[in-house]
Amino acid sequence: MTSSPSTAFPAERLLLGPGPSPVPQRVLRALGAPTLGHLDPQYLAIMDETCARLREVFRTKNALTFPVSGTGMAGMECIATNLIEPGDEAIVCINGVFGARMKDVIERCGATVHVVEAPWGEVISLEQVKAALAEHPKAKVVTIVHAETSTGVHQSLEGFADAVHAQGALLVVDAVTSLGGHDVRVDDWGIDAIFSGTQKCLSCPPGLAPVSFGERALARMDARKTKVQSWYLDVSMLRKYYLGGGGGGGGRVYHHTAPVNMTYALHEALGIVLEEGLENRIARHEQMHKRLRAGLEAMGISYVPKRSLHTLNCVYIPDGKDDAAARKRLLEEYGIEIGSGLGVMAGKAWRIGLMGHGATLRNVDLLLAALKEILR
Amino acid sequence: MTSSPSTAFPAERLLLGPGPSPVPQRVLRALGAPTLGHLDPQYLAIMDETCARLREVFRTKNALTFPVSGTGMAGMECIATNLIEPGDEAIVCINGVFGARMKDVIERCGATVHVVEAPWGEVISLEQVKAALAEHPKAKVVTIVHAETSTGVHQSLEGFADAVHAQGALLVVDAVTSLGGHDVRVDDWGIDAIFSGTQKCLSCPPGLAPVSFGERALARMDARKTKVQSWYLDVSMLRKYYLGGGGGGGGRVYHHTAPVNMTYALHEALGIVLEEGLENRIARHEQMHKRLRAGLEAMGISYVPKRSLHTLNCVYIPDGKDDAAARKRLLEEYGIEIGSGLGVMAGKAWRIGLMGHGATLRNVDLLLAALKEILR
Repeated sequence: MTSSPSTAFPAERLLLGPGPSPVPQRVLRALGAPTLGHLDPQYLAIMDETCARLREVFRTKNALTFPVSGTGMAGMECIATNLIEPGDEAIVCINGVFGARMKDVIERCGATVHVVEAPWGEVISLEQVKAALAEHPKAKVVTIVHAETSTGVHQSLEGFADAVHAQGALLVVDAVTSLGGHDVRVDDWGIDAIFSGTQKCLSCPPGLAPVSFGERALARMDARKTKVQSWYLDVSMLRKYYLGGGGGGGGRVYHHTAPVNMTYALHEALGIVLEEGLENRIARHEQMHKRLRAGLEAMGISYVPKRSLHTLNCVYIPDGKDDAAARKRLLEEYGIEIGSGLGVMAGKAWRIGLMGHGATLRNVDLLLAALKEILR
Repeated sequence: MTSSPSTAFPAERLLLGPGPSPVPQRVLRALGAPTLGHLDPQYLAIMDETCARLREVFRTKNALTFPVSGTGMAGMECIATNLIEPGDEAIVCINGVFGARMKDVIERCGATVHVVEAPWGEVISLEQVKAALAEHPKAKVVTIVHAETSTGVHQSLEGFADAVHAQGALLVVDAVTSLGGHDVRVDDWGIDAIFSGTQKCLSCPPGLAPVSFGERALARMDARKTKVQSWYLDVSMLRKYYLGGGGGGGGRVYHHTAPVNMTYALHEALGIVLEEGLENRIARHEQMHKRLRAGLEAMGISYVPKRSLHTLNCVYIPDGKDDAAARKRLLEEYGIEIGSGLGVMAGKAWRIGLMGHGATLRNVDLLLAALKEILR
């Protein structure tokens, strides 16, 4: 293995950063299957089954559950542009980079954003959100990050939907780094709109953004007075392709050329998730996190967040160690990628992902051995 | 081969519709190569080389030439959202579905659109555009479709840039169905912003939208008074990833997780284009078009446009023949996909693509034989 730039066949990195995560051979093989037309009955069957599998993984009955034709951030933008109209008010919870991004995205939709903040590495409390709702009773949406990829914080969502719905607002959740690795229960938790990415705990290459919209979100979209500012992400048109003209079955209306091969890959990746079983998969992520954590803490390495994700481990760089040099050695000598710190954590933290196909005993023990060698 | 819906391994269709086009095995193999991190030096080298190859295919020196992380329409929207500010005026040429879409996209950016129209199947004349520019001197952009996928019209762009630039406006071109199959000369023709798709004459699966912005377009973006309404497509941030902080080389700034495997596929597809040579490839498209056209006309089938694309053949369905039934037989008995009519052409026309890897003697003669059988 080598990290020297080359455009020859890509090296087989072990991807233990904040994503993309390691992609199983089965998924890569599906990705390279013959391209079908986006209106071919066989492709539509694959796409329908992909959406059905996404419903299982999101634990939802929402008909409008599909992969947006872009990477994770396109999912965030799809939800924002469809649920927000100019002049709306929104409450955005920020305790890391991705909450801050949501604020930027929503402001670009013409909304006034009221921020609920917690320090980086800490969770947002339900009381904070209730206070914000009381202060801003016109807020149309409340957004929160379930798995903050910049800090590794695991946000509890318990009680949030009730508070948000009591005021007629919608609960929007960023589940990019939790879907398929942590418990995510769209229906039970009352989530109105949620987005994720394919390249984290689903172990599919980056390129699609699974989203799901519930009935309240649909009603909000149907009541819009203005066109969605993005044509590409306009759900009023996308649903005619993904669900058909009549809300299901026939009468599909072409919108854009779907990313056919990426859909194959997601279809296969979701198949693997469901074969393992969501409960088993979530338990595996917890076990591997605990094993890594015990090993890191035994080396004197401490965690940034109090309530850490199992899927992403954000840890302080040991005193006196050179961030870039250590990651470079990991990449060059071991072919292992881990992530640098993001935002205010740059140079202070590392982000170690144990996601999907990557969350294995073999990888945990190898990484611990490699870190011991490099940090000694 | 079968067209019955199945989620087993996809059938090997012969894709002779309006896209996606047939994807070479080399490209499918590249697509399924191991996933690298989006900040891995090896991935950045592949991405840089992909952008360099795109510059060759676009025939431009524009530094800001890269694949947008979405399908072709994301490329259209990227250009519109970055070049247009609310309150701007724009001139949009419409002679088919894709010109009409551009109007919709630009209006969603808050601009007032002045339409220059030609009947479906006919070209837009330079005189019409000059008249529109004289009537609307404040127009900031003029958009035109080089290859109108809904009608098969091949639009000449000769003289357009001079007229547009004389008034300080920018020329925006939709080259989705021409890039890699027809002559497209961004620099020689004075095009300020151009977009395409990967799934047409480049014979790569759908999922990326090559774009290129020239100096005038960059100056316009730098002079914006408002933020780009799309975070996902905001070139002021994207350029820091694709070109690096300093306009080239080092200092890359993470924006979103790039669709890594799709970039491999585009890299390989562009490699194939350049190995063949652009001139040879364009000549091949012309030869195959002529062969198909001669065969179709000998069967009494006539073309919709006066000035047909070589890459897409839009022809009238023979009198008395059932549109859907004929296409179904082609798909089920021959495994061949051709396209139905779009918009006002629905039920009246077929769209036969001879694009990229699909534009071969074997395919032309097979399709003619199959059509003879099915239409007899």
